Amino acid sequence: MRNIILNLATTLDALIEGANGEIDWCILEEDMQFDAFLASIDTIFYGRVSYDQWGHYQPDATAPDMEKQIYSAIQSKVKYVFSSQSRVDNKATFISTDIVAQVQKIRNQPGKDIWLYGGAKLITTFIENGLVDKYMISVHPTALGAGKPLFDISARLNLVLAETKVFKSGVVQLIYTPLSDPKKDR
Amino acid sequence: MRNIILNLATTLDALIEGANGEIDWCILEEDMQFDAFLASIDTIFYGRVSYDQWGHYQPDATAPDMEKQIYSAIQSKVKYVFSSQSRVDNKATFISTDIVAQVQKIRNQPGKDIWLYGGAKLITTFIENGLVDKYMISVHPTALGAGKPLFDISARLNLVLAETKVFKSGVVQLIYTPLSDPKKDR
Repeated sequence: MRNIILNLATTLDALIEGANGEIDWCILEEDMQFDAFLASIDTIFYGRVSYDQWGHYQPDATAPDMEKQIYSAIQSKVKYVFSSQSRVDNKATFISTDIVAQVQKIRNQPGKDIWLYGGAKLITTFIENGLVDKYMISVHPTALGAGKPLFDISARLNLVLAETKVFKSGVVQLIYTPLSDPKKDR
Repeated sequence: MRNIILNLATTLDALIEGANGEIDWCILEEDMQFDAFLASIDTIFYGRVSYDQWGHYQPDATAPDMEKQIYSAIQSKVKYVFSSQSRVDNKATFISTDIVAQVQKIRNQPGKDIWLYGGAKLITTFIENGLVDKYMISVHPTALGAGKPLFDISARLNLVLAETKVFKSGVVQLIYTPLSDPKKDR
């Protein structure tokens, strides 16, 4: 079965963006090997707002090459958008009903792993339904004090630390698996 | 000059306690060498609420030896309590005015380092006045979803990662210094 991987950047105070949507604290370094992560997945799960904001994003001509390569890789992936409203889109498949059953169907198809991109509401739905197989949280050396929190869960989530990676910039990537294997629990 | 060290445990979602004050997710392991940290400090700074809750705490007779040793060490330290109201207390010195000047006076006295214990309001005051020399944040492998946040700061805080320690339990200690040396800035 393909793994569903939540991979995102947070501040030290566990925010995914500032109170005004700021993500300028977010660092992209070559030694993070984000390209290797992107090579390990072939599918991306978006919430509707995230998809509209980032699902077609192209850096402008003056952007660094690494950023251009990353978005070129991202925009080549198969995309699913989870939304309360259905929509026809030639770059993505919209899913608005039976989320759990449809996700199980997708993860049972042959293919590489799947990146659960977000936003927060979609992440919560996936966590609360035991649909996240791996958490890759890149903790940045910045605290904002206010903004959008990483998790909006209603029940405690216990994880198992699998690996830690420390980057030159001071970003620490914490990699966890769920405490009980959600695939076995079902 | 003595260092003022913020050393505390947080959840993965950067909470210092749950919505009902829960700290049962907090892990104490021998390999964390908390006794060595306690040996490196001789003074503790408390907010008034934290002092009333923990400043006299003694584990009961059935508690593990490590916990008894830790609280015995804690209760042997010199204590200052920062409070809007003054109070006479035979175990601590209360400070209610001129916090920054009084803290500078204490940190210029000979002695070991100082543990900034908390709570959240006191931590904020210290951060916003550039009075924290080292941040030791022990990130636990649990998310709660709601509770008391680590930082209640009103301006962005940029830090420099100094060290990372990974413990058997899955706790990761992130150690930071301020980006600009607050002692030089003043």
